[in-house]
Amino acid sequence: MKNAPLTVDLNCDMGESFGAYTLGNDEAILAYVTSANIACGFHAGDPAVIRKTVQLALEKNVAIGAHPGLPDLVGFGRREMAISPQEAFDMVVYQIGAISGFVKAAGGALYHVKPHGALYNMAAVNAGLAEAIAEAVYKVCPDTVLYGLAGSELIKAGNKLGLKVANEVFADRTYQLDGTLTSRRLPNAMITNQEEAVRQVVRMVQEGKVLSQQGTEVVIQADTVCIHGDGPHALEFARYIQQVLEKESITIQPPHSR
Amino acid sequence: MKNAPLTVDLNCDMGESFGAYTLGNDEAILAYVTSANIACGFHAGDPAVIRKTVQLALEKNVAIGAHPGLPDLVGFGRREMAISPQEAFDMVVYQIGAISGFVKAAGGALYHVKPHGALYNMAAVNAGLAEAIAEAVYKVCPDTVLYGLAGSELIKAGNKLGLKVANEVFADRTYQLDGTLTSRRLPNAMITNQEEAVRQVVRMVQEGKVLSQQGTEVVIQADTVCIHGDGPHALEFARYIQQVLEKESITIQPPHSR
Amino acid sequence: MKNAPLTVDLNCDMGESFGAYTLGNDEAILAYVTSANIACGFHAGDPAVIRKTVQLALEKNVAIGAHPGLPDLVGFGRREMAISPQEAFDMVVYQIGAISGFVKAAGGALYHVKPHGALYNMAAVNAGLAEAIAEAVYKVCPDTVLYGLAGSELIKAGNKLGLKVANEVFADRTYQLDGTLTSRRLPNAMITNQEEAVRQVVRMVQEGKVLSQQGTEVVIQADTVCIHGDGPHALEFARYIQQVLEKESITIQPPHSR
Amino acid sequence: MKNAPLTVDLNCDMGESFGAYTLGNDEAILAYVTSANIACGFHAGDPAVIRKTVQLALEKNVAIGAHPGLPDLVGFGRREMAISPQEAFDMVVYQIGAISGFVKAAGGALYHVKPHGALYNMAAVNAGLAEAIAEAVYKVCPDTVLYGLAGSELIKAGNKLGLKVANEVFADRTYQLDGTLTSRRLPNAMITNQEEAVRQVVRMVQEGKVLSQQGTEVVIQADTVCIHGDGPHALEFARYIQQVLEKESITIQPPHSR
Repeated sequence: MKNAPLTVDLNCDMGESFGAYTLGNDEAILAYVTSANIACGFHAGDPAVIRKTVQLALEKNVAIGAHPGLPDLVGFGRREMAISPQEAFDMVVYQIGAISGFVKAAGGALYHVKPHGALYNMAAVNAGLAEAIAEAVYKVCPDTVLYGLAGSELIKAGNKLGLKVANEVFADRTYQLDGTLTSRRLPNAMITNQEEAVRQVVRMVQEGKVLSQQGTEVVIQADTVCIHGDGPHALEFARYIQQVLEKESITIQPPHSR
Repeated sequence: MKNAPLTVDLNCDMGESFGAYTLGNDEAILAYVTSANIACGFHAGDPAVIRKTVQLALEKNVAIGAHPGLPDLVGFGRREMAISPQEAFDMVVYQIGAISGFVKAAGGALYHVKPHGALYNMAAVNAGLAEAIAEAVYKVCPDTVLYGLAGSELIKAGNKLGLKVANEVFADRTYQLDGTLTSRRLPNAMITNQEEAVRQVVRMVQEGKVLSQQGTEVVIQADTVCIHGDGPHALEFARYIQQVLEKESITIQPPHSR
Repeated sequence: MKNAPLTVDLNCDMGESFGAYTLGNDEAILAYVTSANIACGFHAGDPAVIRKTVQLALEKNVAIGAHPGLPDLVGFGRREMAISPQEAFDMVVYQIGAISGFVKAAGGALYHVKPHGALYNMAAVNAGLAEAIAEAVYKVCPDTVLYGLAGSELIKAGNKLGLKVANEVFADRTYQLDGTLTSRRLPNAMITNQEEAVRQVVRMVQEGKVLSQQGTEVVIQADTVCIHGDGPHALEFARYIQQVLEKESITIQPPHSR
Repeated sequence: MKNAPLTVDLNCDMGESFGAYTLGNDEAILAYVTSANIACGFHAGDPAVIRKTVQLALEKNVAIGAHPGLPDLVGFGRREMAISPQEAFDMVVYQIGAISGFVKAAGGALYHVKPHGALYNMAAVNAGLAEAIAEAVYKVCPDTVLYGLAGSELIKAGNKLGLKVANEVFADRTYQLDGTLTSRRLPNAMITNQEEAVRQVVRMVQEGKVLSQQGTEVVIQADTVCIHGDGPHALEFARYIQQVLEKESITIQPPHSR
């Protein structure tokens, strides 16, 4: 029996503009990714931005996802807040609902949900929050895919409920022996060399392994890769990883889309 | 052929608490009304309040409606803002979506949409805003009923799109010769006598007429009556109008629910 | 040489209404306290509420304080957020400034600053945040009194900068061997018996000691007592503690006001 | 007696970034203007942005002004809202206070107040709002200069209270016979030719006149000129008008600064 072709998803956070403020380069980056995580108005985004971003993603045939965050616009959802699981459930239901309104109005379908920033990080390690978020997805849109840090509590919580999940990996971050990301506060947290970053992804997809900072290989599942939408080299990197993945015969497509 | 039995809906704004703040007496008033307009987080309400209010309405078997407002929490959505039709469309889509998330999570169905406060008032007279709001309902939840001031631009816009509509009347407000409400800035805007207020409603339902401040009768369609949820006499009035309507053999039920 | 007469301050959080929402019973409680901590619009309060509350406090001759909180209206400033010392400095400067505008407009003077909720709790144990908050007070209103949990990092940070400080104690909370409050998550955290609560305060003022949950006496300085402004028994308790303190010849006045 | 040398102020709105969002090019434009209107957190700006912008203006020796706006971040304070004079007073007191905290913390002094966007426009024509705003300035910072549209209700209100005022004119806008700006909805509202725009300003300063769209000259007082901080040609235009004014021996300095 032949092996199934290798596949991976490239996802990007977008719709993070707000009112008079523009952030990112959504239209350009949509040419390179297969799924778009669209901010829902809590950490970024506003109703007009959501509508336009949903429309853009539909036009470019990119999978549309909700990207719910903490209610902290000034902190861009990056500051951890001591919220309860019930509060996490409520804010995720609200935000998934809000973007679903625009998706429905535009004649599309919601494909996935990926929490943002501090909510994503907390859900990676806090089982209570992870379960609350997974429960929100399960109750509002059970057919969508839940994106979370590869091997994290959020992935476990999604599996427990029978949700489709996507393990997210990072091209430009290094990993620890336990499979977690090296903290940004430590040196060597970032991989700044493009070639090295892409090689790490290719290995994750082809071999299911990543070399940890401790020098030992770690098993990791790479269903989707986070692509950054802003920064001076964002587009260049997106183009480059797309080319390499194609050369390696890795199909770029949304997870669970076969 | 016998006449169909007369019916009317009693609706009430609710879910207007926020965080540590409690407003209204939702649980008690739900015993007397047949449809609940639930605030969606812009002028009042927050994710936890929406969840609890949706749950309450489901338990009491009261029709659940979205009650979208202007993004003006400190002004409770009562201050007119110079928004464009596109902005009105976007904020209504967002808010209908958000509450729909909770309705879906709770296993219910959204029954209607009624704009709040200044958005309601502007939509009553501004055709552009009215059409944008009706369009939002049409695109997101075309099977729901659009509530608007009886005979207003919002009702016309809903009819134009083929939406089910409900003409809303007020028990405690007086009417002008052109069928509009007497401005609150004028004397005699309010009907403070309970009996008189209920008599006005009964007449609207039975005869389709209301006596204007100019002394002439005006044709008016009364599909739903706005019941206030707070104030010292709210519950007493709700109980009273319910009793009188029943005595007059007027069935109290959501509009279009036959 | 005769002893100076014993004194203590009774402070109360107020101005926590917002827009259409009313919280607390500010006017009534002002008859019993000597200092008012007025919310500044981040966790509660809005410009109109601040103006009215400042006016009320002036009329009742109660010392006016800024009560800055985290930017979390829906959580009432009670959820800890991972803010940096610089962010704490900035949000405290902003909020002290904002209330100072109203104090100046009303012809009064700002007397003290007391952080609210999670900001207060974090500043009690986190030296970096405590120093940033004290620095904000030092830079904007160096003559005011900084209120903090008795013996906390915030008090130390104020002392380090040469600010006047007020050690705050609680009538209705029990204490641990190290002088900290018993966590609300533990049993016995609260003192529900009014007499016992007031006796604890009297002893703190007269002897500078409190009996810890571990059964050992702990040294504590009681410059100001936190009085709650809402709850069913708030006024009753305020009246009662005032009476007992007077009977014990303890003068009730703002700290540093001799 | 010799004539006093002609003077004019160049002012620019700034501090309009927010959280993760950057707007404008404050540092560069500060080299060309003599007064900076700093957003106060309602329509734009946040505590960190205010602190940094105040610091920048101090370093560049540019007069610091409060730039209070409507509480409408998503609309950037550009949408008119039906606020009462009392609400206008309150929101201006709050915002002047907030920025004053940072100015005091940085060892500077507040020089002026200029309302933003829709608040500015409403205050130009609505005497009640104009008087409320002037009253706020009078009560909180009576020594500062109130900026308003040349000849507007806001200028009249300031004069009535004995405040120092600055009549603001626009280089890139055309004028009507009654001295008001041509509405942006009309053709010919904007002057896109740089030379023509600067010539209009020079004439306003030297002769106190402007040629209206109706072909007749109108008397106008030009104390301060609004310079835009963003847009592709903002810096180029700022440099150009500075050069021409200097060549014409017009001293560029804050109003009332002699």
